[in-house]
Amino acid sequence: MDDRKPIIYLDNAATSWPKPPGVVEAIERNVRENAANPGRGSHEMAVKASRVLFDARKRLARLFGIGNPNDIAFALNTTHALNLAIQGLLKPGDHVIATSLEHNSVRRPIEAMKRRFGIEATFVAADEQGRLNVKEVEAAITSKTKLIAASHSSNLLGAIAPIAELGETARRRGVKLLVDAAQSAGTLSIDVEAMGIDLLAFPGHKGLLGPQGTGGLYIHTDLELEPLMHGGTGSKSEAPEQPTVRPDRYEAGTQNTPGIAGLSEGVRFVLGETTKTIHAKESELTFALMEGLLAIPGVRILGPELGAERTAIVSFTVEGIDPSEMAFLLDRQFGIAVRAGFHCTPLGHETAGTYETGAVRASPGYFTEKADIVSMIDAVKEIVTMGKGNRG
Amino acid sequence: MDDRKPIIYLDNAATSWPKPPGVVEAIERNVRENAANPGRGSHEMAVKASRVLFDARKRLARLFGIGNPNDIAFALNTTHALNLAIQGLLKPGDHVIATSLEHNSVRRPIEAMKRRFGIEATFVAADEQGRLNVKEVEAAITSKTKLIAASHSSNLLGAIAPIAELGETARRRGVKLLVDAAQSAGTLSIDVEAMGIDLLAFPGHKGLLGPQGTGGLYIHTDLELEPLMHGGTGSKSEAPEQPTVRPDRYEAGTQNTPGIAGLSEGVRFVLGETTKTIHAKESELTFALMEGLLAIPGVRILGPELGAERTAIVSFTVEGIDPSEMAFLLDRQFGIAVRAGFHCTPLGHETAGTYETGAVRASPGYFTEKADIVSMIDAVKEIVTMGKGNRG
Repeated sequence: MDDRKPIIYLDNAATSWPKPPGVVEAIERNVRENAANPGRGSHEMAVKASRVLFDARKRLARLFGIGNPNDIAFALNTTHALNLAIQGLLKPGDHVIATSLEHNSVRRPIEAMKRRFGIEATFVAADEQGRLNVKEVEAAITSKTKLIAASHSSNLLGAIAPIAELGETARRRGVKLLVDAAQSAGTLSIDVEAMGIDLLAFPGHKGLLGPQGTGGLYIHTDLELEPLMHGGTGSKSEAPEQPTVRPDRYEAGTQNTPGIAGLSEGVRFVLGETTKTIHAKESELTFALMEGLLAIPGVRILGPELGAERTAIVSFTVEGIDPSEMAFLLDRQFGIAVRAGFHCTPLGHETAGTYETGAVRASPGYFTEKADIVSMIDAVKEIVTMGKGNRG
Repeated sequence: MDDRKPIIYLDNAATSWPKPPGVVEAIERNVRENAANPGRGSHEMAVKASRVLFDARKRLARLFGIGNPNDIAFALNTTHALNLAIQGLLKPGDHVIATSLEHNSVRRPIEAMKRRFGIEATFVAADEQGRLNVKEVEAAITSKTKLIAASHSSNLLGAIAPIAELGETARRRGVKLLVDAAQSAGTLSIDVEAMGIDLLAFPGHKGLLGPQGTGGLYIHTDLELEPLMHGGTGSKSEAPEQPTVRPDRYEAGTQNTPGIAGLSEGVRFVLGETTKTIHAKESELTFALMEGLLAIPGVRILGPELGAERTAIVSFTVEGIDPSEMAFLLDRQFGIAVRAGFHCTPLGHETAGTYETGAVRASPGYFTEKADIVSMIDAVKEIVTMGKGNRG
């Protein structure tokens, strides 16, 4: 890794950093040598650009157990993918079930469709530790229910949802399952077939270790969505409507080829390391961080208890210290990057009982070192001690 | 320019290539050093990422005469921007006027809204050279007309639409004007205030000389659109709806920060050179290309006649040679990249009378050299001669 590392970066749940070797180089090479439009001409550079997208699709398909790479549509970000899934599937009169842990990128499209098209929605509450009761989800199913939408891992609590169980329930009841893999793609094992996932929205710039501006949506072969964007596709130009051929149907306009070239290298790295190894290392770091923080008086960690399964997200509050003050001091005095606030999940904060205050979120990544965790714990300790001193 | 140049690239209307100095470096630096989320945390890297987006917005505002940079929303591509404009503005019962020169990224969203929401649309025909009669557009306005949508420059013909006149008409009649600047941003002078443009959709990867995966939409301060995507914005996280503050309202999810860092450098280059100089150089190359091609027997060039104003797009047919065969031979035998087919504008081909055959499109860019034009003319001449020989 030749990246400079000026700070201790514990904000990987927002965007992973640094990137593995090869990612920056692939982006650079693409812009320098290969800047033509994929699928929009037969000339050599255009053919190369198409190959970049196809290679990335193949790697993603391998990672997620997807049979046909063309069932993956690229997107600007997870939010784009989730909006395509939700707005593309639901019709007036439909009912959707989501959870109290959803990010605003699931909640807000649903609220917008309630308001504009009169769809109905039920948000099933997880418990304070983020545990979801699949029986309660099933009990919420009505004759109008078309979709269950669930975060694979809460971006606030790190809690992991029982996706395979939800998938089994959804299949048995004839309902579709949308999984928001914002915090799990590249770190938890995902197999869309085995887990019964019909729609999988994923970011390119988090656990898949690619650049910002990338992400995608897997759409089950048998599932037809209304496209979110209509436009040029390089195929069936003469038709007034979007073509039905995939991935063109869901990828109007010129795609982010250099970004996807970088993403492709990120996915290659993940496939090489395996999500098992990545999750194991991140879990070790997360355990150490939780253990250290819990030993500090006044610290409360949200989500699953120490030792229980979670992704590498440690959100916490400290009695008497505002989360934004804590994040500010960590950044300015210790060079540690974390995130304070509501993390775009007010529902999650309601679930965790931190709706009034928010929380500090520290999220290690695969390249975080044990020493970084020690520095973080020491810094929080020092801030807490100073805080006590000031008030004493 | 240290970019290798293995081929003669005349497909700049699809994606410009090569990029000016600084673009690749800005992207690379951003991914290496600065990969945190803009507007999503107070830590140093997040602040830097926000600054990248703000600087790009300021430069774009300067280029397009936009008073408030926050009236610009970034997008994945022009298609995304056009869909946000069209789907965000039109409501059931509305009428929209577009032209017969529109790209599928304007036509298809309109057709989709006709089908789904019962909006009405009129496509006003330009003449065979691509000239649009503003009086005919005005005559099509009804009491239900909410929007006029027009390409600033046809991606097939290179013809330039009388945008300021359309803007004057739109203002006078209380109708909004959407301009598709896919082929004009960075090459023609655009001033949204002076030209009466309410919505301006632009690509980052063509005349603005940035990378693929970038683009945006200017939205007049007084105009409210329904967002195309709903999700996390880093602001007002607690609200179930998208915030009204700009640009957050129209930029849900993590933006393509590295791509926008590159775009920002492209726009800086354009501002330095000026669109006047860029258009003048491209016009000279275009004139030479047209003149040379017209001297070849059987060549017909679409759009404005030699010497008339146009952007750097030269679409042509050659009697007896299929456009895709011509493009194939140019690529394989001469290393010249052009595009054959329908260019996502069947309406444009109907206008030009080439709906059955398509055309070959050669589009020089600011970095095209006079020698490239000569090579292109010679190559077409040779293919035509060979073709005659084969048939003789």
